Amino acid sequence: MIIDGKKIAAEFRERLKERATSLKRRGIEPSIALINAGNDPASAIYVSNKQKLAAEIGIASTVYKFDDDVKGNELANLIKKLNADKNVHAILLQSPLPKNLRFSEFVNLIDPNKDVDGLTLVNQGKLFAGEPNVIPCTPFGVLHLLQTVREDISGAYAVVLGRSLIVGRPLAQLLLNNNCTVAIAHSRSKNVPEICKTADILIAAVGKPRLVGKEFVKPGAIVIDVGINRILGSKKIVGDVNFDEVREVAGAITPVPGGVGPMTVAYLMSNALDLAYRHAGI
Amino acid sequence: MIIDGKKIAAEFRERLKERATSLKRRGIEPSIALINAGNDPASAIYVSNKQKLAAEIGIASTVYKFDDDVKGNELANLIKKLNADKNVHAILLQSPLPKNLRFSEFVNLIDPNKDVDGLTLVNQGKLFAGEPNVIPCTPFGVLHLLQTVREDISGAYAVVLGRSLIVGRPLAQLLLNNNCTVAIAHSRSKNVPEICKTADILIAAVGKPRLVGKEFVKPGAIVIDVGINRILGSKKIVGDVNFDEVREVAGAITPVPGGVGPMTVAYLMSNALDLAYRHAGI
Repeated sequence: MIIDGKKIAAEFRERLKERATSLKRRGIEPSIALINAGNDPASAIYVSNKQKLAAEIGIASTVYKFDDDVKGNELANLIKKLNADKNVHAILLQSPLPKNLRFSEFVNLIDPNKDVDGLTLVNQGKLFAGEPNVIPCTPFGVLHLLQTVREDISGAYAVVLGRSLIVGRPLAQLLLNNNCTVAIAHSRSKNVPEICKTADILIAAVGKPRLVGKEFVKPGAIVIDVGINRILGSKKIVGDVNFDEVREVAGAITPVPGGVGPMTVAYLMSNALDLAYRHAGI
Repeated sequence: MIIDGKKIAAEFRERLKERATSLKRRGIEPSIALINAGNDPASAIYVSNKQKLAAEIGIASTVYKFDDDVKGNELANLIKKLNADKNVHAILLQSPLPKNLRFSEFVNLIDPNKDVDGLTLVNQGKLFAGEPNVIPCTPFGVLHLLQTVREDISGAYAVVLGRSLIVGRPLAQLLLNNNCTVAIAHSRSKNVPEICKTADILIAAVGKPRLVGKEFVKPGAIVIDVGINRILGSKKIVGDVNFDEVREVAGAITPVPGGVGPMTVAYLMSNALDLAYRHAGI
């Protein structure tokens, strides 16, 4: 079974549109501030895509653009201003920042109740403590996909390959909070295929093209591929999973593209709406 | 091999005394504030023991005692006062609080740079992010014991049984930050003995007397028992591990009592000294 992230995300976006409409009926205009500091070309595309999706859902968005030579205090002042602005419900700081500015320093200036990516220390601490406030978008999207295949993941043995701050670590916490038995493996792990092969749920989030072959996968397991790897010299995108090989063994699998990717941006909008609802006290 | 926590902790305390002396030579009197709110009899004993150990190490301690009817704002005001007091380097809020007061609310009033237990959301977030500020005492003590047996735990497969906020979760993060492959199993997990039996390092922190039998343990594994269970109708304390049975299989094992326990309180003092050093900028 192939998990059709594109279709699932499209259905999810319809529900988000209804939630946005419902907010507007109550006189609240949900809104997100997108901060794009620096001239990274990929960031420009990401921010533009987020703006388009916000428009589709019915969320007002404003892009705050700075050049590479932006001063730290300009950025800090903008964040403080947006924190104080009652009409702004969600703030996104696009990564990476220009080289002289530390991302973690500035993201932590965002009010945790406007931190749409769930990347502030307070929100990470709350996720860690099992009382999440804002759940990072990719892990949230992965959970959604999992639950389309297996409604109750409680007690399942999940192995997360990769320990990044935006995917592996928060995803492991989220699965733990949902009562999975959770293992995290990474670049320093040994016997990785054997460890993965006992998993009911296998999540690949390491950024290594087609690393996960069928020797990693227990027959019938659910395999979620978070990898987005561009093949050098081509426009082709591949995941961390050797899809053609693993689909023969897995019970369910996400493709790349068309798996986790569409869910991630949808959850950015879902988080923004959650924050707007919460702000309104409804 | 039995890991003698009592002896290792005694050696560690000697190093702590030297660190305290060294601070005093520089004109800094390391100090900890112990807040004991409520009339819980066990808390009174714990706080008294902490005070005695602080005196032994050479850390000044002050106990702030409130009765069960303490008002939230009294407690909050005290914490704010201690945060602002430059002569106080570490603040401990003894758990539990009286029933009408939420522990998480008050512990989060503590300045993260004085949070000696590492329980504020900011410090939990930092541990989670792999950039720890203050590491909770029991996990820190467990790591110390592990490293007396196996200096480099990188790449080892560690299974943590239990997902509590003060042991299981932070310990899993700490082991992950030290490059272990880490699994967390808990009350909702299935096939727990099989999962544990693949571990190079097995940590039991579930609070179930003698749960872990030899069928949980790979021959040669390091077994750390964090459990402290009182047997009803007796004064005997037992761990989560069936010691007599597991010692025949394990490569190394901690006893209860005399294993993790003595390390936990020693690390409370170690954290207090770290905070005092940091406060002094040395």
